[in-house]
Amino acid sequence: MSERIIIVGGVAGGASVATRLRRLNEDAAITMYEAGPYISFANCGLPYYVGQTIPDRENLFVSTPEDMRDDFNIDVQVNSKVTAIDPAAKTITVQTTNGTKTDSYDKLILSIGASPVVPHFPGLAEADNVFTVRTVPDVDKITAYINQHSPRHATVVGGGFIGLEMVENLRERGLNVTLVEATPQVMPNLDFEMVQFLHEHLALNNVDVRLNTKLEAFADNGHTLQLADGEGLETDLVILAIGVKPNSQLAQDAGINTNERGFISVNKHFETNLPDVYAIGDVISVENAITKQTVSIPLAGPANRQGRYLADYLAGFDRQNPAVLGTSVAKVFALTTASTGANERQLKAANIDYQVIHLHPNSSAGYYPGAAPIELKVLFAPDGDILGAQAVGTKGVAKRIDIISTAIRFHAKVAELADIEVAYAPPYASAKDPVNFAGYMAGDLQDNLVATIQWNEVDALLANDAYFLDVRNPDELLAEPALDNAVNIPRSEIRDHLSELPKDQPIYVYCAAGLRGYNVVRILVQHGFEAINLDGGLKTYRTAKY
Amino acid sequence: MSERIIIVGGVAGGASVATRLRRLNEDAAITMYEAGPYISFANCGLPYYVGQTIPDRENLFVSTPEDMRDDFNIDVQVNSKVTAIDPAAKTITVQTTNGTKTDSYDKLILSIGASPVVPHFPGLAEADNVFTVRTVPDVDKITAYINQHSPRHATVVGGGFIGLEMVENLRERGLNVTLVEATPQVMPNLDFEMVQFLHEHLALNNVDVRLNTKLEAFADNGHTLQLADGEGLETDLVILAIGVKPNSQLAQDAGINTNERGFISVNKHFETNLPDVYAIGDVISVENAITKQTVSIPLAGPANRQGRYLADYLAGFDRQNPAVLGTSVAKVFALTTASTGANERQLKAANIDYQVIHLHPNSSAGYYPGAAPIELKVLFAPDGDILGAQAVGTKGVAKRIDIISTAIRFHAKVAELADIEVAYAPPYASAKDPVNFAGYMAGDLQDNLVATIQWNEVDALLANDAYFLDVRNPDELLAEPALDNAVNIPRSEIRDHLSELPKDQPIYVYCAAGLRGYNVVRILVQHGFEAINLDGGLKTYRTAKY
Ligand SMILES: Cc1cc2nc3c(=O)[nH]c(=O)nc-3n(C[C@H](O)[C@H](O)[C@H](O)COP(=O)(O)OP(=O)(O)OC[C@H]3O[C@@H](n4cnc5c(N)ncnc54)[C@H](O)[C@@H]3O)c2cc1C
Ligand SMILES: Cc1cc2nc3c(=O)[nH]c(=O)nc-3n(C[C@H](O)[C@H](O)[C@H](O)COP(=O)(O)OP(=O)(O)OC[C@H]3O[C@@H](n4cnc5c(N)ncnc54)[C@H](O)[C@@H]3O)c2cc1C
Ligand SMILES: CC(C)(COP(=O)(O)OP(=O)(O)OC[C@H]1O[C@@H](n2cnc3c(N)ncnc32)[C@H](O)[C@@H]1OP(=O)(O)O)[C@@H](O)C(=O)NCCC(=O)NCCS
Ligand SMILES: CC(C)(COP(=O)(O)OP(=O)(O)OC[C@H]1O[C@@H](n2cnc3c(N)ncnc32)[C@H](O)[C@@H]1OP(=O)(O)O)[C@@H](O)C(=O)NCCC(=O)NCCS
Repeated sequence: MSERIIIVGGVAGGASVATRLRRLNEDAAITMYEAGPYISFANCGLPYYVGQTIPDRENLFVSTPEDMRDDFNIDVQVNSKVTAIDPAAKTITVQTTNGTKTDSYDKLILSIGASPVVPHFPGLAEADNVFTVRTVPDVDKITAYINQHSPRHATVVGGGFIGLEMVENLRERGLNVTLVEATPQVMPNLDFEMVQFLHEHLALNNVDVRLNTKLEAFADNGHTLQLADGEGLETDLVILAIGVKPNSQLAQDAGINTNERGFISVNKHFETNLPDVYAIGDVISVENAITKQTVSIPLAGPANRQGRYLADYLAGFDRQNPAVLGTSVAKVFALTTASTGANERQLKAANIDYQVIHLHPNSSAGYYPGAAPIELKVLFAPDGDILGAQAVGTKGVAKRIDIISTAIRFHAKVAELADIEVAYAPPYASAKDPVNFAGYMAGDLQDNLVATIQWNEVDALLANDAYFLDVRNPDELLAEPALDNAVNIPRSEIRDHLSELPKDQPIYVYCAAGLRGYNVVRILVQHGFEAINLDGGLKTYRTAKY
Repeated sequence: MSERIIIVGGVAGGASVATRLRRLNEDAAITMYEAGPYISFANCGLPYYVGQTIPDRENLFVSTPEDMRDDFNIDVQVNSKVTAIDPAAKTITVQTTNGTKTDSYDKLILSIGASPVVPHFPGLAEADNVFTVRTVPDVDKITAYINQHSPRHATVVGGGFIGLEMVENLRERGLNVTLVEATPQVMPNLDFEMVQFLHEHLALNNVDVRLNTKLEAFADNGHTLQLADGEGLETDLVILAIGVKPNSQLAQDAGINTNERGFISVNKHFETNLPDVYAIGDVISVENAITKQTVSIPLAGPANRQGRYLADYLAGFDRQNPAVLGTSVAKVFALTTASTGANERQLKAANIDYQVIHLHPNSSAGYYPGAAPIELKVLFAPDGDILGAQAVGTKGVAKRIDIISTAIRFHAKVAELADIEVAYAPPYASAKDPVNFAGYMAGDLQDNLVATIQWNEVDALLANDAYFLDVRNPDELLAEPALDNAVNIPRSEIRDHLSELPKDQPIYVYCAAGLRGYNVVRILVQHGFEAINLDGGLKTYRTAKY
């Protein structure tokens, strides 16, 4: 008899494991149970449907139960929630619109995802205008509410990528938007000085950004938000986007092990502790490729890939779930922000030593119209392993993070970024690409050609009367003043003024972006000075203080 | 006494070695001799200056002799051609506007580049309207000619990337343009079926493309071109862009070894056979990273990098010139075309076994507006080494080639392209990126999950009455007819029609792009048929026949 495979959850992970399994095993009897009304939909497109960038609701459906039946001979049951697993009997209980039924499996695959976190806020139960964004019905409700009530003001609670995408798309719909974020920053994958570019850009786009601001309660049927700072914020529509929690109750009830945050624990073959029960996608914890810690990385790429790895493993191929970098990208109005690997906060938490570089290269040749700065930060270990990268800008941002993501995947050392052949013609890159620059700068640090300080070390040095040398041109100082008490000698005149510089104390050199400062440091150290460059120049320092 | 370093040639390689040398060695006496009037200019921007995309001539200069003096304490002599090297005396002879002088070196670095090939065409000497594109004076002449003579028709001879950039930029200036190319295709880095997308696109942009057409002579002061097919082509302006030859006469005269094509032979440290004489950039031959052959790869990225590697080596770092992939990109009107590594022609010439995949994935999520197809071809060895990739499309093309270039550089196996975490959000990529798809498809071939035929095998099979199965939907056949005598069974109905299919002969399955054909092959082989997919589907086949 053919093997009976049951898949619970029919979207990113579930649909992917199903189709690949079928391609590898024409014989198996594959049934997919999906609690919601739809399978295989574009979760990631949902915010853009609200904003009408995706105008056609049909476009949200990548595949349908009919396609699964006709193309893949897969039996799909929607509106069918699996409510219990009996691992001894190898059966599941399914709650359908017609009541409850049982089904039995040889292999059971859980790709049951995660759900938006919705804390028990006082007053939430009385609110009719509070929504989350995870499913098509969710955005149907938001759209219906907008169409019926013509709200003028929306509040998005939570500044992760889903929150920011909702901010942008609600602005697209013409609403005034307040963003309420409990921590000091949006986009937790970025470090503070990088995310400041986003904070500034959100403000420019007339988003009322409230950082360090906690939502405490709803009043007035959800039309007033009580914030921790005491303010009562009036609003017409509220989106809660404060994170996701794994849908693992079903699994826990069946005796499947989860970690302390509720994510299902699996081995490299997606095996749970129950025989013949596997789990993939947002509901599992995975190994972080950098910190080696067990984390949750709820992203569509991993979920899709895990589906395929698992199908392969079940079909007898030797596939393992590789550790995950968590490479990701988000559009925030005109800006793109992307990252891969770990950030400073994660590295500190994991006790991993690192060095940092910041640079602001052009996305393409500066002499060709349309080049735009990329704010790039790269983190690397003393042994040269690349630990992470973050980038913000209007152009070419995802490309550079993808290149670095690839380099990390294949164990490149940071200085080897210099050797990467990035395809160059003026509209696309520079003869020395931003990625190459990062390799140069990191190599220079490793080779002790330069020492640097970071933006967050400046103020303490200023307070201690450290010697700062500003090597910009006088006209630049008019546009952006020097640091207090800094001495100004333009880069091109340094060699003529060496005798004026102190030999008995460190000289902290800076320019606008770091490049000239570095060049001056090279001159000074070779003349016997102790010179140190401000990494990222004034741009990183000032943006961090924005 | 400080070391005396002379650099000949002041553009990509020369300027790069000079600045890095200075950063590493504040003491050395560095002099740069440049035959032309300018150093450090943007060769790669020259076509766009002609087309006025780069409106400001000033933008063509990345650095100047004054900057080199003030910022880097480098002595730059322009309009100073080095005419002889005396390796025994360690001196050079320089021809300046004020006569000839001698200078002596401890180290001599040649970054003397290459020059456009200009064959001795009959009638060329009498022509006043024939130009090449290498230097700022070259484009000054073209611009002056256009302004003075208001030509209406231009002919570009040579369909490499410089030729194509000139075609586009002359169209931008409003000229009618004929492109004359001796071989069957433009862009020799691409294979024929890939370059056909460009041929079609050039025609769409009203470029009169003459392939397999040799220019034989000029008549009428350059206003008539005698083509090998007998035609006399009337034209107002001619650009010769038929390749470059190394400027190595100076070196050869001094006893420096060159290869049979005249490129200077250097070792991994850029050392020529003469003591203390080094060469970098377009004038040298390098190792091709894929074929291991000694080739010339005249691109700005390598020239810049070689300058830096050499400076490092001279300063005592252990740096070698890595083998070069030749990753490159060009804009051709709305299309971008990029490639890395070797193409089929090069692999055949080098006797390297390979397999091929063609795919046509979207640049970003299909449900988000603006996604566009990328035509992607990947070549790989039986052991999984990635040998090369080619791509054409309107969006995201360079990014995918850059990712694959990075993967090759760090020795990824082709199936590992599946594991790369490409940053995904709907505006940027898909949950399964084109690069991941390439990894899937290559892995499927390696795992013998599918066998394929290539576009150029179809006609012979058709002629031999092979059994072709078209698995597209009936409406697609109306839009684009099936192959002659192909049987049509839509993918979704295959399982119901198995009994109609032959078991005694191979079944060649195809669809529009390859994906459905592959899925059907997986069904058929598991039911005991010998089924083979048409790689790239009808799209690759038909485009190759365009
Ligand atoms: C608004 C939004 C935007 C996003 N944007 C991006 C992005 O740009 N890039 C990115 O990489 N990721 C993005 N993601 C994340 C991505 O969608 C998820 O990582 C991915 O969908 C996870 O796949 P999964 O199969 O684990 O879970 P899901 O796709 O969530 O599928 C789980 C399914 O299981 C069903 N289910 C749960 N329990 C049961 C049960 N007991 N019985 C039956 N069915 C059950 C659920 O109804 C659900 O349909 C976004 C997510 C959202 C919500
Ligand atoms: C129109 C055009 C577009 C291009 N576009 C791209 C592109 O998009 N991407 C890309 O990667 N590459 C591109 N290139 C190629 C790139 O510009 C070259 O690979 C690069 O400039 C080579 O650097 P080099 O230092 O070896 O030679 P060059 O930059 O050519 O510099 C050599 C210099 O040496 C001088 N010289 C020669 N002989 C002597 C002598 N005897 N004495 C003194 N001086 C001497 C010459 O006058 C010249 O200025 C393009 C080139 C051209 C011409
Ligand atoms: C689409 C979906 C149903 C999976 O279906 P699928 O058939 O496995 O996936 P695709 O249609 O992308 O096709 C991939 C297959 O086609 C093959 N393929 C792709 N292009 C091909 C081509 N030109 N020629 C031959 N084969 C090709 C791939 O190799 C792969 O097959 P393999 O896994 O056996 O190697 C599932 O991923 C899904 O539901 N996605 C939407 C939900 C989602 O991901 N949401 C979150 C993000 S918004
Ligand atoms: C520009 C040119 C003069 C070289 O000058 P350069 O100072 O070496 O190069 P750049 O200005 O790009 O700066 C690179 C240096 O700054 C450093 N740098 C870049 N950004 C930095 C930052 N934010 N902070 C600190 N250092 C930085 C790099 O590490 C590198 O130094 P290193 O090589 O010692 O590691 C030379 O490449 C040139 O003439 N180019 C134009 C000609 C050409 O290439 N033509 C063909 C293509 S069109």
